[in-house]
Formats: sequence, structure tokens, C-alpha cells
Amino acid sequence: MSDPVQFYFDFSSPYSYFAAQKIDRTIEACGREVRWKPFLLGVLFKITGSQPLNTVPMKGDYCVHDWQRLGKMTNTPWSMPETFPISTQAAGRAFYWLDDQDPALAKTFALAAYDTYFGKGVSIMAPSKVVDIAASVGADGDALTEALKDAAVKQRLKDETAAAIDAGVFGAPFFIVDGEGFWGSDRMWMIKRWLQGRSA
Amino acid sequence: MSDPVQFYFDFSSPYSYFAAQKIDRTIEACGREVRWKPFLLGVLFKITGSQPLNTVPMKGDYCVHDWQRLGKMTNTPWSMPETFPISTQAAGRAFYWLDDQDPALAKTFALAAYDTYFGKGVSIMAPSKVVDIAASVGADGDALTEALKDAAVKQRLKDETAAAIDAGVFGAPFFIVDGEGFWGSDRMWMIKRWLQGRSA
Repeated sequence: MSDPVQFYFDFSSPYSYFAAQKIDRTIEACGREVRWKPFLLGVLFKITGSQPLNTVPMKGDYCVHDWQRLGKMTNTPWSMPETFPISTQAAGRAFYWLDDQDPALAKTFALAAYDTYFGKGVSIMAPSKVVDIAASVGADGDALTEALKDAAVKQRLKDETAAAIDAGVFGAPFFIVDGEGFWGSDRMWMIKRWLQGRSA
Repeated sequence: MSDPVQFYFDFSSPYSYFAAQKIDRTIEACGREVRWKPFLLGVLFKITGSQPLNTVPMKGDYCVHDWQRLGKMTNTPWSMPETFPISTQAAGRAFYWLDDQDPALAKTFALAAYDTYFGKGVSIMAPSKVVDIAASVGADGDALTEALKDAAVKQRLKDETAAAIDAGVFGAPFFIVDGEGFWGSDRMWMIKRWLQGRSA
């Protein structure tokens, strides 16, 4: 069995939200599994000198419009959040805590968190909100509330972010397939061709 | 007859080079024409605070690899030029001078210039090189040599660059379809869907 495809994302990245809707279906159709890896985009932005897309002159207006257009074109719910971008520490910490217990539940939580933030436009920055979302998909809310204060849980997300950067991730969404990196939600076609062995 | 689709590009933009290989075929299949509009990306970079892709930490290495990979995957000749990026004033000025006489010849010239720069890796910065390329596809080399020194020809490219920025172009390749902007060589699918009226 080959290694899973790595799907790196930040809970505050709109293009990652769109990628998340289809990544499992796309990759599983090629006979491979997907491992979801949230990380903190803000840490990377300090290295690459990037800014949140919506704050870049000209590009910002385009992206806000593009997200709405992508939602329509792909039949994906879209509501531009009033608070954007946000810190996603709580969601990232919750994800890895769940992932260690039940990877399928962690993905279900991630999709629910994305639906709350970008589908409904409601902030997921507060730990209490993250706990509510996790509980709504079947996680133990009380245990998660405690876990989010745990130093080891906090460190885990830091370590995962550092590991992503070490692996060459410089934006989100980012995919690593057998060591080969692909950046952006528009690159599904290339990942599929790579998996199908049509390029050396 | 609807207005042509506007294809904004810089002769030093690798992703524009890849887009140029397929843009006419893609858009004409949707029953529309394409108008090619070279401009100076460097002028835009000053506004958006962008840098040439290959100089951005982490992203730079990725892009250099991605261009080679795209070349293989799309069967498009690719040689990373030793001198990159370059100023493309001469090529842009030559393009509009040719375009006013014969738009089809201007496109043929643009593809030949791209093939020299990214297909063969040979710089097209020097006016004499641009004249050689234009002459090789049937243009009047002596007349072009004179035209490249003409103040009005120089001003034309400045005006076209300013007009692109006014139209909302902030990167390359960029496409404007009936006022709707699309950024990036990976967005052909979206432009096709837009033209086919599948989204409001």
C-alpha cells in the first residue's frame, strides 16, 4: 500500500475549503487514501512575506469575488465571513486530538468546521465554538474542552506546522504525493495525472 | 458578435507561455475570438508589492520545478532561461506594432517569441533579437527596427499597460470575458463554463 496523499490546509483558507469538498473523492478514485494535515498559514506567511489574499491590492477584490463565483460554479455553500482571516489554533488543535482517536471523525469535524466558517460565515476562532462543532458530529465536548488547554495538544499543532514547512509547504491548499508537491485547489487535474503515472 | 476575450500576458511570464499554447483553441471552441494584450508585469508588481515568482522563498523553487513539470505534462517545450525574468519592452512594442497591421501575424510572432524564450531558453530582451524573430515569421525587419525607436510605439505599450491595470489586471496570465476577470493558466475550465452560461 502506498503512502497516503498529504492534504495540507488552514481552516481560514478559502481555497482549502473548496479543495476539502472534493479531495477525498478525487484521490480515492485513483486508489489512494488522503491524510488531512491542518497547519497555521500565518507562520508560513512570515517566512514567505505573504499577506492574506483579501488584503493584497487588486488581488484582494478579485479573490473575494472569485470565492463567491467558485461557490456558485461548484454548488458549494459560500458566505464571506465578516471576520476574516482568523486564527485557527483551536480548530487545528481539535483536529489532531480527534485524528489520534478517529481519523474519519477528524475529517467529519473539519468539514463541519469549514461549513460553519465559509458555508455559513460564522467565526470558528473561539475554542467554545470549535467544541460545539466537534460535539455536533459526535466528539466528547467536555474532554475536548480540557484537551484544548493541554500543553501537549498545543505543541502538536506547532510541530505539525513546522513539519509542513520542512516538507516544502508554502501555501494552502498544498498536496504532497510521494514527495511531489502540488499547490492550489486548481491542481487536482495534475495530481490525478501524476497518480495515474502519465508523467515521470 | 460578442466582444473578444481579452488575454493579458507578459512575454516573461511562464504561466502565460503555457496559457498561450491553448487559449485560442479553447476560446474559439466556445464560439468566441481572443484578443492578445501583452503588458509589463513589472509595472503591476510595483502596485501589488509582488516579486518575480522564482525569487519568493520556497515558492520560487516550487515554481521552477512546476514549469518543467507542466512542460512535460502538456507536451510543451520548456527550457528554463538563464536570464529570468527579463524586461519585455521590445517584444511588447513589436507586438502592438504588428497587431495594428495584422493581428494574426502578431499572434504568430508572440508564439515564436515565447518559443525562443521559454521553449529554447534564449533571451528575447534585445530589440535585435525581437526583430529577428519577427522577420522569421514574415514581418518587415527593417521597418520594425525603426518602429522600436519610435516614441509613439513606446507610448503605446505604456498605455496598454495602464489600461490593463485600469481594467483590474493584477497578474499574468489574466483573462477578461465580458467584464469578468479570471486569473491564472489553471482557470481555463472556469472560463469555458462562464462562456457556456452555466453560471450567472
